[in-house]
Amino acid sequence: MSGRYACDLAAVQAARERLHGVVHCTPVMTSSSFDKRAGRRVLFKCENLQKAGAFKFRGASNAVQLLTAQAAARGVVTHSSGNHAQALALAARQRGIPAYIVMPHTAPLVKRNAVADYGGRIFLCEPTLTAREQTAQRIAERTGAVLIPPFDHPDVIAGQGTTALEFLEQAPELEALVIPVGGGGLIAGCTIAAQGVRPGIRIFGAEPVGADDAARSKAAGQWLPQTSPQTIADGLLTSTGQLTWPVIRDCVERIFTVSDDEIRVAMRFIWERMKIIVEPSGAVPAAVVLSETFRALPGLSTVGVVLSGGNVNLDMLYW
Amino acid sequence: MSGRYACDLAAVQAARERLHGVVHCTPVMTSSSFDKRAGRRVLFKCENLQKAGAFKFRGASNAVQLLTAQAAARGVVTHSSGNHAQALALAARQRGIPAYIVMPHTAPLVKRNAVADYGGRIFLCEPTLTAREQTAQRIAERTGAVLIPPFDHPDVIAGQGTTALEFLEQAPELEALVIPVGGGGLIAGCTIAAQGVRPGIRIFGAEPVGADDAARSKAAGQWLPQTSPQTIADGLLTSTGQLTWPVIRDCVERIFTVSDDEIRVAMRFIWERMKIIVEPSGAVPAAVVLSETFRALPGLSTVGVVLSGGNVNLDMLYW
Repeated sequence: MSGRYACDLAAVQAARERLHGVVHCTPVMTSSSFDKRAGRRVLFKCENLQKAGAFKFRGASNAVQLLTAQAAARGVVTHSSGNHAQALALAARQRGIPAYIVMPHTAPLVKRNAVADYGGRIFLCEPTLTAREQTAQRIAERTGAVLIPPFDHPDVIAGQGTTALEFLEQAPELEALVIPVGGGGLIAGCTIAAQGVRPGIRIFGAEPVGADDAARSKAAGQWLPQTSPQTIADGLLTSTGQLTWPVIRDCVERIFTVSDDEIRVAMRFIWERMKIIVEPSGAVPAAVVLSETFRALPGLSTVGVVLSGGNVNLDMLYW
Repeated sequence: MSGRYACDLAAVQAARERLHGVVHCTPVMTSSSFDKRAGRRVLFKCENLQKAGAFKFRGASNAVQLLTAQAAARGVVTHSSGNHAQALALAARQRGIPAYIVMPHTAPLVKRNAVADYGGRIFLCEPTLTAREQTAQRIAERTGAVLIPPFDHPDVIAGQGTTALEFLEQAPELEALVIPVGGGGLIAGCTIAAQGVRPGIRIFGAEPVGADDAARSKAAGQWLPQTSPQTIADGLLTSTGQLTWPVIRDCVERIFTVSDDEIRVAMRFIWERMKIIVEPSGAVPAAVVLSETFRALPGLSTVGVVLSGGNVNLDMLYW
């Protein structure tokens, strides 16, 4: 696969070495009552227990660690109101460099506080993509900080792929992985890694019906953007990227979609029975595995699900 | 210590062997942000991730496994609206015997459903201790089922003590344990086990201000009952027992109390930052460790906290 995509297995393996002791090797959990409902054995890779609460810390750390000393000294910048913002702030602090985080002024206080807690310097802007990009651009120009985007970057994709390397070592019996698709960084990295060490392993994407650009793109055989997304899974609103889409197009077998109600049911099951906090976006693959369509798939006795994040607003109920 | 208390180290070690493959060896978690607030290193034993959602499954399983085949065949009975009910129902199902669970008709639906889910046969009664005891007694007489009480029973105490054996193997550096006190089964078993394998290890109890019978008993030097408890920590309302109190009296260094607000803060921190669900009672030791009084204790660099359970009602917010 070398050279065809944004990164290759060697880059993911190098990221794994680099991130040793930096990221948590997150646990794999099981639930016999979940298995019963899914009709097969399901293993959960708990990236909700990752530092900063999501797999995003892997990609952000890999990108930050790979900067030269000279570039790193000027800091990093990104625009995000989500998990990438927290992840980058923490990754930068671990390297002892500044992180400038551009957030819309509409971002919930809990997210702003989390970024600030990790030492990120927050710049608020209007809640439009243009304002976010322009603000980040201005900061980059003024400070010399390096822009680290949330997914469409080779080092970020390689970092996210370490999730799959760990998962397959912890659970060699896995026959397939089910992975959420937002910008596609996680699924691209995991696909490159998993099919690199285990050719033939099946990779499925998981999307909300209300942000199903990857599913529509696969069906159309060409990249389609996500417009007007509407879903509780607020980490999966974005379109796939220039670097992530080709991997999804060529190597992911199929994208399954689930409704917000299905996401809520899966999320609540994980909280209530497995006693761990997963955010709506992180519960999407679990919801897929519980769906009729997925249950009907033949020939899959053990599947791996990535619980991608656990950052929620605890001031509200999700059901 | 042999012979002085309801059980001894050998009984806990035998329980550990017996429960191998029956109970989960629960993980130990850490949080650097919690450490910062506590002013020392804190290790969490995650019994909220135990089967049936609490350490209670250890004691219930040990008691059920120790029944003779003849006694077991007639089933087990208890009166409880809490975690012991679910634990006993599951322990009985695992041995393939009936469990009769007496619950007040005021018990939340979520708890009734959990017991039913584990195959427990529920008998509702008036919400008084007399009605509960009489109903359980009638069932025992009619069916021949063995009464398994929630804490004041040697086999139950020995089962709960396996928590500490595991914890000290997973984290030999622990200098003290902080354990919640309701009826006292967990702290009695853990004290016997921990001081058995590690003489001199310090054991602290954790209670809500609104159900502080063990703290008052220690202060008075004699057993005092809990009357009119009032706290969010609904698993810790009961008085200590005839078998558990002597261990607390003699071997527990001190009982710390915390307010419901302190419990809520600790509980929310664990949900929000550690991404695991802990119930109010299970968060009490964490709240103790964050308190001014505990922080001021000299000479303790590493303490272990038992997160005793994770069974909550997700239809409400706790803060």
